[in-house]
Amino acid sequence: MKALVYHGKGEKSLDDCPKPEILAPTDAIVSVTRTTICGTDLHILKGDVPTCQPGRILGHEGVGIVEQIGAAVTAFKPGDHVLISCISACGKCSYCRKQMYSHCVTGGWILGNSIDGTQAEFVRIPYADTSLYPIPAGADEEALVMLSDILPTGFECGVLNGKVQPGNTVAIVGSGPIGLAALLTAQFYSPAEIIMIDLDDNRLEVAKRFGATSIINSKDGQAVETIMKLTGGRGVDTAIEAVGIPATFEMCEKIIAPGGTIANIGVHGTKVDLHLETLWDRNLTITTRLVDTISTPMLLNVLQSKKLDAKSLITHRFKLNDVLEAYETFEHAADTHALKVIIEI
Amino acid sequence: MKALVYHGKGEKSLDDCPKPEILAPTDAIVSVTRTTICGTDLHILKGDVPTCQPGRILGHEGVGIVEQIGAAVTAFKPGDHVLISCISACGKCSYCRKQMYSHCVTGGWILGNSIDGTQAEFVRIPYADTSLYPIPAGADEEALVMLSDILPTGFECGVLNGKVQPGNTVAIVGSGPIGLAALLTAQFYSPAEIIMIDLDDNRLEVAKRFGATSIINSKDGQAVETIMKLTGGRGVDTAIEAVGIPATFEMCEKIIAPGGTIANIGVHGTKVDLHLETLWDRNLTITTRLVDTISTPMLLNVLQSKKLDAKSLITHRFKLNDVLEAYETFEHAADTHALKVIIEI
Repeated sequence: MKALVYHGKGEKSLDDCPKPEILAPTDAIVSVTRTTICGTDLHILKGDVPTCQPGRILGHEGVGIVEQIGAAVTAFKPGDHVLISCISACGKCSYCRKQMYSHCVTGGWILGNSIDGTQAEFVRIPYADTSLYPIPAGADEEALVMLSDILPTGFECGVLNGKVQPGNTVAIVGSGPIGLAALLTAQFYSPAEIIMIDLDDNRLEVAKRFGATSIINSKDGQAVETIMKLTGGRGVDTAIEAVGIPATFEMCEKIIAPGGTIANIGVHGTKVDLHLETLWDRNLTITTRLVDTISTPMLLNVLQSKKLDAKSLITHRFKLNDVLEAYETFEHAADTHALKVIIEI
Repeated sequence: MKALVYHGKGEKSLDDCPKPEILAPTDAIVSVTRTTICGTDLHILKGDVPTCQPGRILGHEGVGIVEQIGAAVTAFKPGDHVLISCISACGKCSYCRKQMYSHCVTGGWILGNSIDGTQAEFVRIPYADTSLYPIPAGADEEALVMLSDILPTGFECGVLNGKVQPGNTVAIVGSGPIGLAALLTAQFYSPAEIIMIDLDDNRLEVAKRFGATSIINSKDGQAVETIMKLTGGRGVDTAIEAVGIPATFEMCEKIIAPGGTIANIGVHGTKVDLHLETLWDRNLTITTRLVDTISTPMLLNVLQSKKLDAKSLITHRFKLNDVLEAYETFEHAADTHALKVIIEI
């Protein structure tokens, strides 16, 4: 079968690989029909993710059709159309039993990381019963690819952890795909204001179209002052960090109101300064999270009810044979204006 | 009247001062019967609290008898025995209306800070109706002094923010009066383990007596390894920081389990390193808080039910005339083994 294979820092190619086989009774083999590329795949290609070794098929998002099931799989059968979760959950360990699937002791984020992933014609899904979701009849399968990772990540790590509430003021620092996913799902809770901050005017225009009440380009160094002015000097109730560098996290520390919540989504490669000398008495909550995908069934319902335009995140479409071009397009988003790119298998 | 007056960095004396007067209709004048000294008073004396200017009467804890009330005070009358809260709450501003009394826009922690305090024969209490609590009949008034600040602080900032739960594992870094207040009140929720960490063997022995299941002297630099071993490599569900320096906060970052909560109580004078490069995906919550004293009525009930031995925090007793000696004793706790010192007026 064809698959996109990581060959070490900066190296990838579309290779002929052996078709995956059932290795455990809880496995399913899924014929992938659509997948996408994640910012994390670019991190892997930069050599930043040591758990992902050369030879690995990348990708942790997608939809497809069950091809084969292991003896212990009871929730799915061959021919079922399924959504693949980026998180594999055994459903039995102490973390899974408290719905912290991200920390499943034998699962978590393993697809396209420590086991082969979804940017391929077929993929082996461990713990199929608790890591696949049935696709509702008549659903737009392209939109559903956005539910593998990006929408639950923005929603769980940003919106739920950030305790977005009706009437509140929210700032989202970073208007890339993840920040936009937080923006789309924050609106479930009717906040009064959603302020988007980024360096890229195009992404900010998209944010405006997606429902941001204010957009701020931070390149002039005045973003903090502008936000404080917008909020009457009070700051925001929720600050969602959707970049993953010290400057953006520290911006959140400066714009958060007393009693507010800083919800980190960004993948950080270095420590940040936490200014406890000013924050110790401000009744703040700071959260970190790897998506648990506990909200996938809820997001499926919202999507079906037409209250979430997941498809609006998709800007480009490619065939698997053109996956290298898809990577080029996604990597150069500043020029191509790419958000999410769909790869049809 | 006699009062302990701050005269600038390192300077204090017991002075003759004018008796306070009603300045606003919501004020009450309280004849103080017992007060105490807080670690924060020592911070003021080091010159660390710029809002507290020379000439200020110190103290923000105490019990007493209402002497006089302003025209708008309806919940108290002269002769009532009252507990003084360290936090003055107008009860009307947006922060008070969401029970964030610590951030009351005209109150908060002002007693013995920006207005005269309780280490005196009389004190003016602003917003008396919402800043004083009636003392239950037959209560031990000495024990009640521990409810002005230290017990609600340990409980709200440490135990409530730290989400201490039955069966959980808790570490409290710092076994001074505040850490011990967290230790006493954490036991309301029946955690399985409470590990106390400090550099002082005497304080750790007190912690053991107060209910700690393990005590660790961190002077050998092995505390993190010991805690990880005690918890089977998992770390603790709740880490309560009760010191206020980078080393102890960063210890909390190292011992916290995935999904756990770091609850900061310590008053920090400098920034700390937040290691998001390892913590971004660990589903953590970090909280900061200045005590709101919302739990005072609940703690009064617990005290009355004999399920909280508040008096065990009291090690020394002085008369107001000997308040300088009381400060000496409290400042040199390593030698005197002082926890809280009662000053009788």
